[in-house]
Parts: sequence; structure tokens; C-alpha cells
Amino acid sequence: MTPEHENPPARRTYSYLGPSGTFTEAALAQVPEARDQIWRPVRNVGEALTDVVEGRSDAAMIAIENSVDGGVSTAQDALATMPGLRIVGEYLVPVNFVLVGRPGATLADVSLVAAHPVAYAQCLQWLLRELPEHAHLPAASNVAAAVGLVDGESDADAAIAPPGILEHHDLELLASDIGDNKNAVTRFVLVSRTVAPVPPTGADKTSLIAELPDDHPGALLELLEQFSTRGINLSLIESRPIGDALGRYRFVIDADGHVADERMADALMGLRRFSPRVTFLGSYPRADRAINRYPQRYSDDVFVEARDWLRGLISGEPGA
Amino acid sequence: MTPEHENPPARRTYSYLGPSGTFTEAALAQVPEARDQIWRPVRNVGEALTDVVEGRSDAAMIAIENSVDGGVSTAQDALATMPGLRIVGEYLVPVNFVLVGRPGATLADVSLVAAHPVAYAQCLQWLLRELPEHAHLPAASNVAAAVGLVDGESDADAAIAPPGILEHHDLELLASDIGDNKNAVTRFVLVSRTVAPVPPTGADKTSLIAELPDDHPGALLELLEQFSTRGINLSLIESRPIGDALGRYRFVIDADGHVADERMADALMGLRRFSPRVTFLGSYPRADRAINRYPQRYSDDVFVEARDWLRGLISGEPGA
Amino acid sequence: MTPEHENPPARRTYSYLGPSGTFTEAALAQVPEARDQIWRPVRNVGEALTDVVEGRSDAAMIAIENSVDGGVSTAQDALATMPGLRIVGEYLVPVNFVLVGRPGATLADVSLVAAHPVAYAQCLQWLLRELPEHAHLPAASNVAAAVGLVDGESDADAAIAPPGILEHHDLELLASDIGDNKNAVTRFVLVSRTVAPVPPTGADKTSLIAELPDDHPGALLELLEQFSTRGINLSLIESRPIGDALGRYRFVIDADGHVADERMADALMGLRRFSPRVTFLGSYPRADRAINRYPQRYSDDVFVEARDWLRGLISGEPGA
Amino acid sequence: MTPEHENPPARRTYSYLGPSGTFTEAALAQVPEARDQIWRPVRNVGEALTDVVEGRSDAAMIAIENSVDGGVSTAQDALATMPGLRIVGEYLVPVNFVLVGRPGATLADVSLVAAHPVAYAQCLQWLLRELPEHAHLPAASNVAAAVGLVDGESDADAAIAPPGILEHHDLELLASDIGDNKNAVTRFVLVSRTVAPVPPTGADKTSLIAELPDDHPGALLELLEQFSTRGINLSLIESRPIGDALGRYRFVIDADGHVADERMADALMGLRRFSPRVTFLGSYPRADRAINRYPQRYSDDVFVEARDWLRGLISGEPGA
Repeated sequence: MTPEHENPPARRTYSYLGPSGTFTEAALAQVPEARDQIWRPVRNVGEALTDVVEGRSDAAMIAIENSVDGGVSTAQDALATMPGLRIVGEYLVPVNFVLVGRPGATLADVSLVAAHPVAYAQCLQWLLRELPEHAHLPAASNVAAAVGLVDGESDADAAIAPPGILEHHDLELLASDIGDNKNAVTRFVLVSRTVAPVPPTGADKTSLIAELPDDHPGALLELLEQFSTRGINLSLIESRPIGDALGRYRFVIDADGHVADERMADALMGLRRFSPRVTFLGSYPRADRAINRYPQRYSDDVFVEARDWLRGLISGEPGA
Repeated sequence: MTPEHENPPARRTYSYLGPSGTFTEAALAQVPEARDQIWRPVRNVGEALTDVVEGRSDAAMIAIENSVDGGVSTAQDALATMPGLRIVGEYLVPVNFVLVGRPGATLADVSLVAAHPVAYAQCLQWLLRELPEHAHLPAASNVAAAVGLVDGESDADAAIAPPGILEHHDLELLASDIGDNKNAVTRFVLVSRTVAPVPPTGADKTSLIAELPDDHPGALLELLEQFSTRGINLSLIESRPIGDALGRYRFVIDADGHVADERMADALMGLRRFSPRVTFLGSYPRADRAINRYPQRYSDDVFVEARDWLRGLISGEPGA
Repeated sequence: MTPEHENPPARRTYSYLGPSGTFTEAALAQVPEARDQIWRPVRNVGEALTDVVEGRSDAAMIAIENSVDGGVSTAQDALATMPGLRIVGEYLVPVNFVLVGRPGATLADVSLVAAHPVAYAQCLQWLLRELPEHAHLPAASNVAAAVGLVDGESDADAAIAPPGILEHHDLELLASDIGDNKNAVTRFVLVSRTVAPVPPTGADKTSLIAELPDDHPGALLELLEQFSTRGINLSLIESRPIGDALGRYRFVIDADGHVADERMADALMGLRRFSPRVTFLGSYPRADRAINRYPQRYSDDVFVEARDWLRGLISGEPGA
Repeated sequence: MTPEHENPPARRTYSYLGPSGTFTEAALAQVPEARDQIWRPVRNVGEALTDVVEGRSDAAMIAIENSVDGGVSTAQDALATMPGLRIVGEYLVPVNFVLVGRPGATLADVSLVAAHPVAYAQCLQWLLRELPEHAHLPAASNVAAAVGLVDGESDADAAIAPPGILEHHDLELLASDIGDNKNAVTRFVLVSRTVAPVPPTGADKTSLIAELPDDHPGALLELLEQFSTRGINLSLIESRPIGDALGRYRFVIDADGHVADERMADALMGLRRFSPRVTFLGSYPRADRAINRYPQRYSDDVFVEARDWLRGLISGEPGA
């Protein structure tokens, strides 16, 4: 009953954080399958994911991590608590910011700076150095912060925005390249309803969220060992409070490899046996296409050989 | 040269996130030494800590973690990068939210909700259930969100605010107790310039930030083992991106105990030998006054005895 | 082609360290299936096991460990290097020693003490206390040491022997109960050719020998973790030199549980993947019939559930 | 009160396993300080060590391990239970065996083979191949086995002995080079009363014996981690039953390095805190003079720097 099977083939719908011009839209533009389909702008990550769960969209593009501010908490928490979702792709968008004001404004006039909190964090060193006494007015999106200046809805004196904003709005450029890290990127994931993972490419990533069985440091050690003892590197490990009490965490993890790899399947089963709650978010190709590296002793054939050997032991084969 | 030594004794200055009415102010009100002193409201955590570093304030009260949203990233990052600071006390403030609108408004009218991002996260389940199509307008503080409604500066239809807001402003109560967790608390710390830690009370906490030597899962395991192999429980472990590249993290840690405890001193030295960068943030009494528990084999006398034994070995004492 | 299939059924043959009267014979007497069968006394453990490998015997009873002297090296090394064998049962024999001399002898006359080296080690504290200047004349068996006194083949003044020796030979009892440990027992195993393991009883033991991949302490840690991370207790861990160079070891291990247990099968596969050489010696009922204990999280159903969960993930089942 | 302080200087006394011609004597011949001193042959390792404890000797040379048969159990157990001893040097003796008989004998005549159990184990493969039906008559020493053939005290047909035996006794050479490993060596240690360790040379070894706190696999893991987490390699790890019950072990350990090294001192203190009973046997130069290798992060200056850093933290130095 997916749109693809209708006649003529219905177009697919992709939800993303709007309005037009956001970094999220730039991420969606990287998806070949999304071309000429319906792009549905939404106002928060919960709405984007609910669109998918309830069938209004086929997939949602959401920001999940950036290199300066870390994991996007609301996205991580939504994935941890909304069932029926699966990550199917990963996309990187370089992040670059300008400071803009109303026409005629100068940097010396700026006291209140509108910015999405993540963008604000990415420019904080610059702001503390250049505008040490500024105050921060959080905005709902990178674009909204700037638009608010010109439509009179905002009291801010300046806004942090993507450079492209100057092409669409009548704004004064107060400073360029104000991000603290010139190599900053934001990582986005494309999320669909639960489906079988795409086949492994050799350059894959597996995302999951796991809770610890109880509150002691050994539990986190044991969680990490599920991966390290199978030669699996983790590219992301973030703690998020479960929310019921101080000191209770779930861990958001990106592991190198695919659930179809023997070592990853074995690690996931180990994790499942250990953790009171594991959410598998998906195995999908890495945005950077970097081939997964691992010691030879964790290759698929070693796992297969050990299974055959065990079978021989149990059957009493003389050669085993 | 601290103000206390002047004649007549100068009053001490405490920076905190203003304006009057914030949860941060409620935390500062719990500090006996701060009574009748100068309270200096500031607009961001960077400003509060800079006040301390540059001598404008004696201490700053800042929010560091809450039970729903986790660590406060900007506070953690500021402590990680600004030298010369030390945590000297911890305070808990129960968190409770109301939804307010302009006089005469009703819940059905609400489309755009103003809220500080942390408060927003703490009410997200309620909002997704009761106002599934709302948009979020981030505000600079819990109080500012509500004040913006009445002074006409905000386009929002409603604001998330502390209950006390109704005593000071002419607002309509749209919903009470909208926090997702009825036991939510926010943890604040009082930060001074670098000083010797206050003596241990038996109910102490040690805060620190450590970077991993390189990017492999075994490194985090090794970091955690510095504590677990000395019987030290961790009440907080959060990852924060260092910011120079995806996949590079520092870890924000709260450990049970005091640097004057033998096991903690030993763990800190182990951590220092292991980590390329450790920032000791302080040892201070826990807000909940819960006595630190640890196995007898990690008590101070066991460490002292082992040191004496080693000394005997080296000197060749017959009894050793 | 085993004797059982002939007509009339041929009797089975059991090899054991003779002569009649040894502790090994006492162990064999505990095997119900061995009653009224052929008992074949041999002169060393190599001969006993070669009998099995070459088909002269159906099984061999050999001493494998005792509570005072530890593992029996020659038995362990033979099991490590002779292929085609499997342990099928375990038997315990209490160990109790007397010191005997020729008729008319007294303790004061004793200078040279004949004893099998294992028996000697088990009485060493007594000997150093009561006969501090004695010399040791190693004997081939507990019985041979005593018989040598009366048949004139030995120059020894006294012999360490099992108490039953006095019923069969004309010897003087010089001292009773001279074992250093009153609870000493020797552990024997019954070894057959490679067969399928007997079904699990819930009170089982699995024996194996594993080499380390290379010479660093982490390798032994990793070997032990194969068991500890699956909740498996080890009742025996002994190192034996591989024999090609100082510092190269294999490890003789007895683990609680049966290869048919999910956690043990998983541990064995992990060990196989890790170790350059694993010899599975068998899963068999424990002599003491003590039920294996393990945390609930390592029970068979937890493993089965995790496997089902993984299968669901891979197939893309919505509920997984 | 040592002999050195008398006038004229008394000669020192060294106990060793006699008679003349043993491998132990060859080890003692490697000790420059023992030249022209009194060499006291004794009949067992207990006697040798008791000589030292009771002051009859200044030191004892004992075999502690060989590359084929592993640790010498009686020596290890004696060192574990006799207080007041310290290893001060290590010596290696290549091991090479011949099979000898009475004049005129041939290999075909041999049925009963006299041999010290360790020598027997080192020739076992050869014996099983060439004399598959032989029996073993344990002898008290390598030399005694051969001497027994000619003085008529032994019923054996042949003896395993060091090659030098042919120079001193009228024996028939039945086979040469019968050791299973052509590179076999035996390791000896020189043991004195408790003294301060000799200064580190950079090529040192530390010997110790430790009991586990209780009977679970995690305890051995924790013991090993005391070394691995300080970058210390173990060249020997042997289990020995404590002797009071099956399944209770102490571990005999040789670790690379000297108690005067910071990392070793730290590991020993960790071990002392963990283990109910640690016996430090000494730090002494390695026989092979191989320089100890370890990662830079475990060097002495790293430990010193961490200690200074901790001191700064506690004192509240601004720079710490």
C-alpha cells in the first residue's frame, strides 16, 4: 500500500525542518530519490517523525549531530521514544555562519543576538570575543532568526544565519565566517518506517540506543565491551538522561559496520541480553563512504568457522 | 586582595542568570553566605563565569544539569575551556512548569509556544500530546518567555514559565504542572576562582572533565576503569564534542567522593597519567548530603597500609 | 565395531594406573558401567590414553588434579597433545596417608622416605616437622613405595602409602593421617574416544585447553573474559608451558556448565575465534552433583530471545 | 651478625640440591660471589631454604621453572609458605639429557626407566615413541637416577641423566639428546634472607605470589589488571592450589620491572589492597639481561608529574 505501487506512481513525501533555506533542506537536496518528490516543511523534529509514523510522509530528514555542539538532544530523544522508525541514510552538510542585521546596522549596535541554540553554540567563542556583553535570543531555526529582523517580529539587533540568507532577504552583513570551527559539519539522517536494512556496502554505520541495567559504572563498561570485544569501533557515544531521575542514562551509539556483519550481529545480541532496553535505529551507508576497518580475527569467516567447529563438538565428530 | 580583607569588609558579589525570578536565583537563595551580599544578574553563563575570572564577582551560580534534559551544554563547555575556576557547592531546585497566555486566552488558541529550550524539552511530551501542531519559539530564559507575552515583544501565543510568574505578571493560567516528570530537578553549582577544596564531609562529589587520548572505544573503557577499579561510583558521565572534528569527545564526570579521599586521589592521578587533558573542577559537598558508599577494600586505611607495606619491601624489613 | 555390538556382548576394557590398590583403582570402582568388565592395569598415563586412542581399551581412568598438589602435569599435557579423546565422567577419591616401615621399625629410624611425588607433596609439612632431615626417594606409585620395603627392592626406611596397604602387606605402621590436609581429595576423569557429550544434567563441567594468541598479559585477560562476560564460573585454571620456549603457556580450564548450554556454546565460539588452538575435552556431570549457578541474564531463554530479536531486526519486522 | 663481618672474613655458605653434578650445581657455578665459598649440598628444596631461614647458609640456589615442565611446584610452594626469604638473582642452565644403562646394556633391554620427574617429563615424547611400554621409576635427582644403576640400589634398567654423568661413572650410553625440546632451559633463583632489593638495572624482574580474595573468575581478571593497567608485562603466571580445598589457588607471578620503578610500586600497592595475601619475593636482574620495555605513558616521570599535579589541586594553586 506504499505510494510506489499505485498507478500512476504516486510521488513520495519527505518531511524536513523548514522553512526553505535551512541546512536541513540542504541535506534533503543530497538525496537522489527525493528529487521531484513532495517536500513537506515542518516546525519541529517531533512533527517530522510523527509524519512518518502516521504515514503522512515516507521519510523525514532530521539533524542528529554536529561537530561543535554534539548530538541534537531532541532528535535523539524522539528516536529513543517513538517506535516504528528506522534510519536509512546519512548526509553531511558543511556549516558556515554570518552575522546579519537590519539595513544600516553596524556591529557596534549589536546587543541582543537571535540564533538557534545550536548555531549559537557554534559561534560562542566568536561572540564572547567580539560581543562579550551580548545576550542571546533563541530562535526556532537558522532562517527564522534572520527573517525576524526584517519582518519586525523580533527585538534582536542581529541574527546568526547561513550565508545564503543574503540572497533572499534585505539584510546587512555584519560579519562573515563567525563559526568557531571552520570545518564544522552537521550530520543529518533520513528516517523511514521500520524496513529491512539496505544491504551492507562495506562502509556502513549502525545506530542504536541502549539503556543500562542499573546505575553503576561497571554497567557502562560492560556496554562498551560488547563492541570492543568484537573489534567494533564506535564513532559516537552520547549519554542522554532517561528523564525519570538524576543519574539514569541511556546511551546513543553509532558503531562502525552493518547488522549483516557477523561481529555486529553478535555484538547486538550481546547488547540485547545485557540491556533492559535496546532500540535498533538501523544500519545504513556512511555519508563519508569510508570503508570499515577491523582486525582480521573479527571477520565473517572466523565467526562461521567457530560455529562449524562448535557443531562438530556437539555431534562428536572425531576430527573436531 | 579579595573583598573580605578590605575595611570595612566589602560585600561579596554573586553573578547569576537573571532576571529576578529565574530558577538560578532560587538556587542562589539557598546559599547562606550569599545573604545580604550583592547579587549580579547576567545574561549568559559565559558572562557569569567571566565575571569570576576577571574579579567582578566572587562566585557565579550556574545551572549544570537537569534530570530531564541532561547536562547544560554551554555550562559544561565553558567550564571545560575557561581556566581558573573551581566548583565549591551544589544546589538542587525542583522544577515545575505552567503554561501561561495573555489575559483571556485559552489553550485552544495556542499555536506558537515560547520557552527556554531546556524548559521546552522538559514539557515536550505534554506539548506533543496536548498541542501536537504547536511550533516552538525559543526564549532566553524561563521568565523572559512569559514577560514577552505581556510587553508585546513576542509573537508567541503562550509561554512555559515557573509557577511564581503569576504573582508578578498579569497572565492567564492555561495549564499547570505540565512538566513531563513530576520529580524533575535542576542541579546548580556555585563556581569561584581556583581555591583549595573545602574539607571532605563524607558526602562529597568531585567534578572533572577529561579528554580521551585517541579515538578508539578502548580509551573510554580505560577512562571508566580509573574509577571502577578504585570502587568509585560515577553519578554523571556525559560526552561533549571537543569541537575540532566529528567523533572527538571530552567527558564530563561527577564522581562520588573527595580529592582528599585516598581512592579518589589515586584515581585522579591514574586519570592524569592516561588523559591528554584533565580539568579538575572541584570537590564539594553534595546537595543531597547522601553519604558516599564504597567497599571497605577502598577505604583510606587500606591505601595507607599498602603504602607502608611497600616502604617495608623496599627497605628490606624482615617482617615485610 | 565396539565390543558391545558383538554377540555375545563383549566386555568393555578400562585402563587404569596399577597395580591393584591404587587410588586410581578406587576411582574406577565408582563407575557403575565398569563393574564386571575388564580392568587393565597400566604403568603410566600415556599408556592408558594410548590404549584408548588405539582401541585396546574403551576408556581410561586417570588422575587429573588433587587438592594439595594441583593439576597432574603429565595427564594435562597428554590430553593437550593426544587428539581423539573426550572426558566422559569425573570421580573424587578422598586421600589419606600412613607412613609404614619394615616390621619392627620405628619413626626414629627413618632417614629415607619412599613416596610417589604427589603423595610426598601432600605430606610435606608433616615430614618437614617430624623428619626434618629426611631425604625423598620418589616411587612410581603409592603402592609400589610400600611394596618395595617388603620385597627388598628399595633402600628406603619408610614409605608413604594408602591406609589399605596394611591389609595386604606385612608392614609396621609408623604414623597415621600424615596428610597435611585432612580434606584432601584427588580428582579423576574417565576418558573415552571422541563421542558426542552426554546430555546436560544441570550439574555439569566443561574441560578444555587453550593457547594464547601471543605473549602479553592482555591475552590471558581476554581469554578469561570469554567466560566472565557470559556469567560462567571457572573451577580450575592452570597454566602449563607449551614447551617450545620459556614464557609460552597453554591454559587448562574447567568451566561450570555444559556445551549444550547457550552461554557455554557462545563462550566456546568466542574462545575459538580468539585462541590459535583450543582443545575441547568434554562436557560431563560433576562428581559432586552441585547444580551450576549463574545469573538469570545468562539463561538459555535470554540467548534465544536475543537471537529472535536479531532475526526480526534483519527482516525489518515492524515490532522489532 | 652475617659472616662477612667476622674477622678474618668468614666464607659464605650456599646450599644447593646435590650431589655434585646436578644442574643446580651448574647454576651455582654461574654466581661470581659464590666462588671459593662453601657449597653445601642438600637433599630437597625445603632443606635448602630452611638452611637460609635458620642461618646455616647465606643463600640457596633452587630450580624454579623449566621451559618444558613449567614451574617447580615444590619450590613455588616452599617460597609461598616460608617467610623471611628474598630472591636476589636468576640463572639459566641449558638442559640436555642422555639415557644410560649398566655396562653392556642395549636399548632393547629397557623396561623400567629411572628419572627425576621433571627430567622424565622433558623426555616423555621421546620415551613414548622409542620405549612405548616403559614404566617410570621416579628418582630424587638427575644424578641419583644414574648412580643407582651402578651401585645396585635401583631395579631400573636405564636412567635419564645429564651428559656429564659419563665422565664420572661407568655407564653405557643408550641414547643421546633425548630431550623433547632442543632449546630447553631450566631457570634457577638464588634466595637469601629478606634484604633490600639490589638497585634496578633496567633489565629486572619482580617475583611475587598472590592469593585471590575469593573464588570467582573476576578475581583473577582483577589481579591481572593490576599489571596490565600499568603497562607491565608478565613473563610467568602459574596457578598453585592453596591446598585447603579444590578450586582455591594462589598465583605465582614474574613481572617485568623492579619495585623501584614507579609503575611496579603502584601495581604492587594495588595488588596489596586487592589480595588477602601477597608475598613479595624480590626484584632482581634478569638472567637474559633483556631491557624491560613499556609504553612511555608508564614511565617514572609521568607518575611523578601526576603526583605533583594532584598536590597542586589539593593546595588550590591557580595553575593546576
